[in-house]
Amino acid sequence: MPTPAPSPDGASAHARTAARATAQARAAAPALAALPLPARARLLRGLSHALGENAVHLAAVAEEETRLGTERLRGEIRRTQAQLEMFADVVEAGAFLDVMIDPPDPAARPAPRPDIRRMLVPLGPVAVFSASNFPFAFSVLGGDTASALAAGCPVVVKAHEGHPRLSDLTRELTAATLPAGVLSVVHGRETGRSLVTDPVIRAVGFTGSTSGGRALFGLANSRPDPIPFYGELGSLNPVVVTPAAGAARGADIVRAYIASVTLGQGQFCTKPGLLFLPAGHGLEDHLRQGIAAVQPGPLLGDWISTAYRATLAELAAHPAVRPLHLAEEPDDPRAGAPALLTTSAEEVRACPELLRECFGPASLVITYTSADDLLDTLHTLPGGLTATIHGQEREDELLVRRLSAALSAGRLVWNGWPTGVAVTAAMHHGGPWPATTSPLHTSVGSRAVARWMRPVAYQNMPEELLPEPLQRANPWNVPQQVDGGP
Amino acid sequence: MPTPAPSPDGASAHARTAARATAQARAAAPALAALPLPARARLLRGLSHALGENAVHLAAVAEEETRLGTERLRGEIRRTQAQLEMFADVVEAGAFLDVMIDPPDPAARPAPRPDIRRMLVPLGPVAVFSASNFPFAFSVLGGDTASALAAGCPVVVKAHEGHPRLSDLTRELTAATLPAGVLSVVHGRETGRSLVTDPVIRAVGFTGSTSGGRALFGLANSRPDPIPFYGELGSLNPVVVTPAAGAARGADIVRAYIASVTLGQGQFCTKPGLLFLPAGHGLEDHLRQGIAAVQPGPLLGDWISTAYRATLAELAAHPAVRPLHLAEEPDDPRAGAPALLTTSAEEVRACPELLRECFGPASLVITYTSADDLLDTLHTLPGGLTATIHGQEREDELLVRRLSAALSAGRLVWNGWPTGVAVTAAMHHGGPWPATTSPLHTSVGSRAVARWMRPVAYQNMPEELLPEPLQRANPWNVPQQVDGGP
Repeated sequence: MPTPAPSPDGASAHARTAARATAQARAAAPALAALPLPARARLLRGLSHALGENAVHLAAVAEEETRLGTERLRGEIRRTQAQLEMFADVVEAGAFLDVMIDPPDPAARPAPRPDIRRMLVPLGPVAVFSASNFPFAFSVLGGDTASALAAGCPVVVKAHEGHPRLSDLTRELTAATLPAGVLSVVHGRETGRSLVTDPVIRAVGFTGSTSGGRALFGLANSRPDPIPFYGELGSLNPVVVTPAAGAARGADIVRAYIASVTLGQGQFCTKPGLLFLPAGHGLEDHLRQGIAAVQPGPLLGDWISTAYRATLAELAAHPAVRPLHLAEEPDDPRAGAPALLTTSAEEVRACPELLRECFGPASLVITYTSADDLLDTLHTLPGGLTATIHGQEREDELLVRRLSAALSAGRLVWNGWPTGVAVTAAMHHGGPWPATTSPLHTSVGSRAVARWMRPVAYQNMPEELLPEPLQRANPWNVPQQVDGGP
Repeated sequence: MPTPAPSPDGASAHARTAARATAQARAAAPALAALPLPARARLLRGLSHALGENAVHLAAVAEEETRLGTERLRGEIRRTQAQLEMFADVVEAGAFLDVMIDPPDPAARPAPRPDIRRMLVPLGPVAVFSASNFPFAFSVLGGDTASALAAGCPVVVKAHEGHPRLSDLTRELTAATLPAGVLSVVHGRETGRSLVTDPVIRAVGFTGSTSGGRALFGLANSRPDPIPFYGELGSLNPVVVTPAAGAARGADIVRAYIASVTLGQGQFCTKPGLLFLPAGHGLEDHLRQGIAAVQPGPLLGDWISTAYRATLAELAAHPAVRPLHLAEEPDDPRAGAPALLTTSAEEVRACPELLRECFGPASLVITYTSADDLLDTLHTLPGGLTATIHGQEREDELLVRRLSAALSAGRLVWNGWPTGVAVTAAMHHGGPWPATTSPLHTSVGSRAVARWMRPVAYQNMPEELLPEPLQRANPWNVPQQVDGGP
């Protein structure tokens, strides 16, 4: 997704703003890390409660700033509450500490084995860059913040320029729940850069544009002491329709595809940006009429609509591309008209510049002539957050196995749509570059907490000097893998 | 640890050498990833067997190149076998796939929940930079290779310049066990750099110097598609002796300290580089006599002895430092004379340049005047692989808690020594920068396999199209966390 233009102001002021917030976070870190798990879970439930109590007001402020629609925003608040509560459950269950205890073995070969006990501890204060398109679920109290607090890390949020008032309001609502310094909100592009290089900050979470994320990733890695940077960047989210599925239910697939492309004005990182259809699919009219029937709506901000219109125009002007439906630009400068373009798999292989995210309600239909033509093209796609296959379970078994192997993505969807990311334990919202800067990690689901923790092993430490989760008496009653081998 | 000087030859030849090895690795990757777990485990056991069968010859070649001593080398071969067998156990147990299955829930709030099943899959071909000081355990068939093969990733090893013949010999012994392309060995600094930027390579493991590791880390992050880089770099491994422990058993502690400093000529990444003693400890004679009694021995190579002598001379010449024992340089240019220097905690805070790894049989004794003087200094130490506390269990409880909180390390040793890293499930051999480039990961112990895998979630995929570990029928009989919440 695109990023808004930076606001001009003094670099040292930004660094001071960042340093004030990180100093508070540093001061708050030891007490947060030492908090017994039930108390840490209560903080998370308190945040969920605060969101729920103030949902009407929050959604109204969010609507003024984002124009995402009050119903959608109320639903997003509920999702954000569910995320906070899921991480409260994660904290209470204690498995996220990944406790392993290997008793001593003086007879072990090739060397005697000491008592080794290992658990995960919080990394320390972290910075979170919130996203424009989820002003709750990926913002001040979103998944990055919730998972970092669950890990025991204070958080400094760099608010998104698209909803600054909502960001401050959300932060204010946490004041009754969170100890001082545990959660701060700062503003401004340059303040954000200062955060990434601040010595106090031990890791960064980011959701946004590939260019912005890559720049901050470079900053984090070029510090005197590099720190982990978890960036969720762009994704094309290809959808493949097999010939059998196209023949059996092509019109239904096209209808649902257009709904997914235009959901929330196409402003999801999981929007299907590419649809692979068999050549001669005969679905042009369905595609044209379907997309033409969707009314243009307001995008998140002028910077989004400007970028959307420019990217769409560049793709449409490409000699290998022809429009299926390309409406006139709406009068409202913040609106974006839904659009579909088309080309062939062969052209995509020849013109990799077509493989470009167009953030907004547009998508590219790509026709393929054979399984090899399709697979050769899929192998050229960059890594994605998702990939989707529409197939016929029995007829397509062999083809689907080849497609699954060719698609490089964090989530593989069968006969469904990538928009809508279930917040469950097993969810993986991540993927190979450029979907993220770190293919091992997810920003959604219970495993997201692992990004903010590091292991520490204790060797021959007496029981009473060990942290509670490592004591054999297990006063915190956490899962302990004892002498568990693998 | 220091790195040898590069050999001069043509860059394009290096890139071609790297590309040949990575092309073979790419070709081998799908079959290795698809191998059922018992067959993958058999490969690892076969490698252990090959090492054991050829131990006498391997140790002899290793001794010629490294001068580490045949007994130590035979022991290291047994350790390397144990590592391979541990990862075979890990593979057979299947928990490393981290399978999670969330059944669908149409009634879920705030949105209906699809069927989501998640597991870890191999990243693809990886590059491993082997270490000079463990020609078996951190080399061609060492822990990085074993864990990567366990993950299902082909490996291209960049052999260390210190034992090129042994590296080729070790690789040859695997030919009967491993399919073609699964393990290659390449030589040369520039070939190594080409490996890190080769598009086929999906992750890098490195054990070596901070400067060399940092440079390759930068290369990996500045690729068009950045890849994970797991570098194990330098560590000071501080040892703190409390006043109570010093009074109760100071002479014994000093004796064991000198043994740990000079073990293997001090060529361990876990060598205790700093010893904190209470001021007025009265142990100078024990320290002087103990270190003077240790004979100089050959180091791993001329590049090690040159760097050792230079670093030691610079530290000894520092105005804040005085020698406890500093012998004349031995005649053998490859030998290094054991040495102890001393300074005060206050001087260390004033002169952070003293906090410098001296790879070889030397260490710095630091005296402290109070708990605050000690703790203030510990807070200035860089992150380490290990930190050690010698204390009295009952008298020191409060102080030990403060020390544990102040020491930033991956492993905390109580009343013992950091040299000797047990290969067990719970071991953590890693730590905050500059100990490693990635504080979340370990290069020893069963969790090391996680470095080479990424999650994939399958949404609503029919049972028979899912990978075996995700099928409810569970034909591979792996642990499945079903609807497990956290």
